[in-house]
Order: sequence, then C-alpha cells, then structure tokens
Amino acid sequence: MAINLITGGAGFVGVNLAKQLLAAGEKVIAVDDLSRGRMEYLTQFSKNPAFTFIQLDCADADAFQAGVAALHAADSITDVWHMAANSDIPAGVADPGIDLQRTFMTTFATLLVMRNLSIPVIHFASSSAVYGDLADLAISEVSGPVEPISNYGAMKLASEAQIRAAVESYLQRANVFRFPNVVGVPATHGVILDLIRKARATPSGFDVLGDGTQQKIYLHVDDLLSAMLFIRKHAPGRYNVFNIGPSDAGITVREIAETVARQVAPGSEIRFGSGNKGWVGDVPRFRYATEKLSSLGWSPNMGSHAAIAKAAEQIARQEETS
Amino acid sequence: MAINLITGGAGFVGVNLAKQLLAAGEKVIAVDDLSRGRMEYLTQFSKNPAFTFIQLDCADADAFQAGVAALHAADSITDVWHMAANSDIPAGVADPGIDLQRTFMTTFATLLVMRNLSIPVIHFASSSAVYGDLADLAISEVSGPVEPISNYGAMKLASEAQIRAAVESYLQRANVFRFPNVVGVPATHGVILDLIRKARATPSGFDVLGDGTQQKIYLHVDDLLSAMLFIRKHAPGRYNVFNIGPSDAGITVREIAETVARQVAPGSEIRFGSGNKGWVGDVPRFRYATEKLSSLGWSPNMGSHAAIAKAAEQIARQEETS
Repeated sequence: MAINLITGGAGFVGVNLAKQLLAAGEKVIAVDDLSRGRMEYLTQFSKNPAFTFIQLDCADADAFQAGVAALHAADSITDVWHMAANSDIPAGVADPGIDLQRTFMTTFATLLVMRNLSIPVIHFASSSAVYGDLADLAISEVSGPVEPISNYGAMKLASEAQIRAAVESYLQRANVFRFPNVVGVPATHGVILDLIRKARATPSGFDVLGDGTQQKIYLHVDDLLSAMLFIRKHAPGRYNVFNIGPSDAGITVREIAETVARQVAPGSEIRFGSGNKGWVGDVPRFRYATEKLSSLGWSPNMGSHAAIAKAAEQIARQEETS
Repeated sequence: MAINLITGGAGFVGVNLAKQLLAAGEKVIAVDDLSRGRMEYLTQFSKNPAFTFIQLDCADADAFQAGVAALHAADSITDVWHMAANSDIPAGVADPGIDLQRTFMTTFATLLVMRNLSIPVIHFASSSAVYGDLADLAISEVSGPVEPISNYGAMKLASEAQIRAAVESYLQRANVFRFPNVVGVPATHGVILDLIRKARATPSGFDVLGDGTQQKIYLHVDDLLSAMLFIRKHAPGRYNVFNIGPSDAGITVREIAETVARQVAPGSEIRFGSGNKGWVGDVPRFRYATEKLSSLGWSPNMGSHAAIAKAAEQIARQEETS
C-alpha cells in the first residue's frame, strides 16, 4: 500500500490531495510549517488513523528528516508529493529570499531527505510559470526556450532541474505537474479570493488590477487532483512532465470580476486599472498545449469558465462562514 | 569606461577574462574565495592599477556587498561577469550541497548585490549541461525540453532562471553564455589535466574512464573569450542566450588520450574502461547548434581537435613547471 508524504500538507492543494488519498485507502503523512497552510483544514482528518500531521519547515533538511525518520522506519514512505512552495508571486518579486527559501530550498531539502531515506518516487507541483511569456505560442512540455519571468517561476524551474538530476542519480521515478492557475477551496490566496474580499468590503464598487483584458486559463482543484492521480497511475517513464489544464483559451479578469460581483455584490461597480500585467512577473496571456495528457486518456470535467464559477461559489461560502 | 566585477576571478576563465579586459584598457575587480582559483594566477596583474583583487565567498551576499560597496561607491561597477561556480561535476553528484552553494547560491547572492547596488549588466557563464542528454538532436538555444542530468547542469539552469526573472524586474541586461567543454591554461581540472597527470605518473600506461568512444566538442579558452566579448558588444536584446562552441562534431576521449600520450608519454599504453558515460550525470555525446552566434558574425579560430592539441601542449608545459 502506498504511504504518502505530502509537503505543504496543510495548504490548498495538499489538503485536497490528502482527502483523495485517504479516500482511496492510502496512508498520508502531511508536513507543513503552517506559514500559509492552516491546522483547521486538517481537522476533517483528525480521527483518521491513516493520517499523521507533523509541523515542520521542510526547507530544513535536518528537522525534516528527524521528523519523518521514525515513521519511515516503521512503515516505508513510498511517495513524496512535494506541494510546499511560496504561492505569493508578488511577495517573491519584492523579496527574492521568499521563493528561494520556500520554493527552491524546500525542494533541495526534500530531495536530500529522499536520498538519505531511500524514498523512491516524487510527485512535484510545478507551474506553467516555468515557461515565461511565450506570447501566442501554444506551450507544450517540450517548448523552448524556457524563460521564467518571475522568481516564482524561476524557482519552480530550478526545482524541476534538481529533480531531473536526482532521477539520473538516485530517484526511481518523478512526475512533474505543470499546474495552470488552480481554483477551489480552501482558498488561501488568488484572484477570486482577493476580489470576493474587496467586493464584500465595499459592495458599492471595487477595484481590479489591470485593465481586465488579461486572460488566463483556470483549472478547478477537483480536476487537478484527478489529473495528478491519473498521471501517477498511467505515466510511462521514469521522468514525466505534464502540462495540466483545460483546453480552452481561458477567461478574462473582467469575466472573473463579473462572476464574483454576481456572487457576492450584485450591481457592484467594477473599476479597472490600466495595463494588462497585474504585477512584475505576471504573464498576461498564454495558451497551454495539453495534448500529451489528453492523449494518455485524461481530460478535465470543467473548462476555465466552469472552474471559476464553481470556485467563486465555494469561496464565497468559505468567506461567509469564516 | 567599463568597470568590471569578475566572480571566480582567480579561476580558469576568470583569469583569462581579466587579462583580456585589462588589455582593452578596462578596470577589473576580481573576487574569489580561492577554493579552486589561485592567487598565483593573479600575480601577472599585481602591478596593474586597473586591477583589484578581493578574497571573499560570493555566495555570502553580506560579505560580498561589504567587500565591493566602497569600490562601487567610488567608481560605479558597470558589468558583472559571474564566472564563480563549482566546476567538479562528480563532486556535485556525491554531495549536492556543493553545486547548491558554489553554483546556485553564488548566483543568488550576486543578483542580490547587483540589485542592492544597482549594477545594471550581468554576463553569466552557463553551460551546455543545462540541456541534458538530447542524444542526436542538434541543440539550439530554443531547444526543449531542457532537462539537465547532473546537479551541475541543474544549478546552471537554475541560475539562468533567476537571471531571467531579474531582467524582468530590475536588471538592465543579461548575456548568458552556454559554454561547451573549455580547455586551455591555467588548467585547474578537466580531462586533459587528469590524463596528463596520469600519463606523467606512470608513463608505461594509464587508465581512461569509459570505453573511449565518448565524443564531445571542445573550445579553446582564447576562442571562448573572443565570443564572450563579441556577444557583449553585439547581442541585440536585454536577455541574450548564446551557445558558444565549434561547429564540428567533436573529438573522442580516445583521440584526447592519444594526443596527451604523444605530448607527455609517447608509446604509453592507453587502457580503456567500459561504458560510454564517465560518471553519473555525464552526457556521452551531443551536437551543438551555434548558428545563432555565427549569424551574428562570430566564429571560432579552432575546432575541437585544434583546441585539444593547443591545450594539451599548454597544460603539459604548465605541469612541467609546477
């Protein structure tokens, strides 16, 4: 039976992943420094004997290894799901040390622990941000050049590179998931949460970064998890890289703002800024080739518009009860 | 006038670079932790008032900034040539902390210092190792996927990624040089030096890693420097990536060993091992597309065979007098 270690296990994707793995009858050890993840997301698992949580900073290899070594000795960890990362792109532009520590060093330390404890398989939450701004080229897994324009994307690419080298040297297998923008609950950050909070704070009207023409693809976390588990089961190689995303052209910021307004502040005035980049390192528009994954047999249930609509409803409910 | 800061300024490429820049009448500040670089390489510049050497570990951002801040305040540094890196690939496989510290963190800290001191331009010694093993595909600057198979290559790619993001955010310009195998003097490491030392130690015969069929391209450091200075002058963009290399198909390990034997131990028996990879993470063969640079107007004076022949002669002389 698979014994799973999830880094960032109290975060957005980690919590959804734990839920799925536990539902499939697998064991889960979640580690998280709780810098952004929250204990309350884990209370749903607290009575499940197949679930263990350890609070630790997985960028600290010594603390990480000490924290999991006894569990691993008792029952060998088979899969590491490395989800821990800084998810706040603007914060990483302001202070490069954040992406260094939380995205890059967590990967470095995770690999070191895997090497020391002979844990064979890693699944890694990478990002479309590794590609940078390829404008209107449809980005596939073999597209080049790969030129991230944010520290966030740079440290994700840097993490992939480390993992690739580790497969050559000691790992048995690695699956690299290049996430698009992912939405759902529990929402800890992101455009929907930001807009919902703004719209609830001043229901008469709210501001949106940029001119609203920015268009991006979005995937619902339910679909993301379905893809990750599918890849784990069906990917053929020792090192597998997959774009995960809908096959549509995405949804504009204007449409997202309108969806949010309908949800939480009907009739609200939406005020747009200027320019089509929200912040330094933001990629205004991209198209995502997902044929590699679809030809393996997976496709999402929701496109960008459906994912945003469902997430807006879920996040509005989350915010009402918080 | 250009004021140049060279990291790894007492290393193989750094010393050759300093010599060229000083000869062109520019100023040079060299920094090096002397872990592999050597003071004796710098004695040739010691009476030149345009040259300054500071011993420091440029992975330590605080020490680095403190070391150069006063010089920068007096006369603004215009160009950073970031040459500092671990150059021992097998050492990095054995201990991933080496490439982390000497290749990745030196880049992180260099960028931090450039940001803090507003130094506008970086030139970076990257590597063909970023590409990984693309087998018989001729590798161009836009080839994908980019999948390094050594920690060395991973940390070079990770460094490129950081630099790309920095150009988006605060740097004015970056030139990324993807070096092939480079040979010349002062030789601190590499296949020629290894073989010369072996052949001199036991002139009757010496062992070679692998079966000798491994084929790689080599560039002489004189040509490398010529290309770097050409790119600095002529590259058109804010972020420029160039493969630098000869346009030939390379030279085999067998031919290199024979060249060395002729040079230092004629009649010596050359004993080959098995397999065509010398070590984990070694790329057995690759072809390098250099059309981007040649169409800008630069081409090398020496192909792989001429580069090896010249370097073998120079390194043999270096070893005789050392």
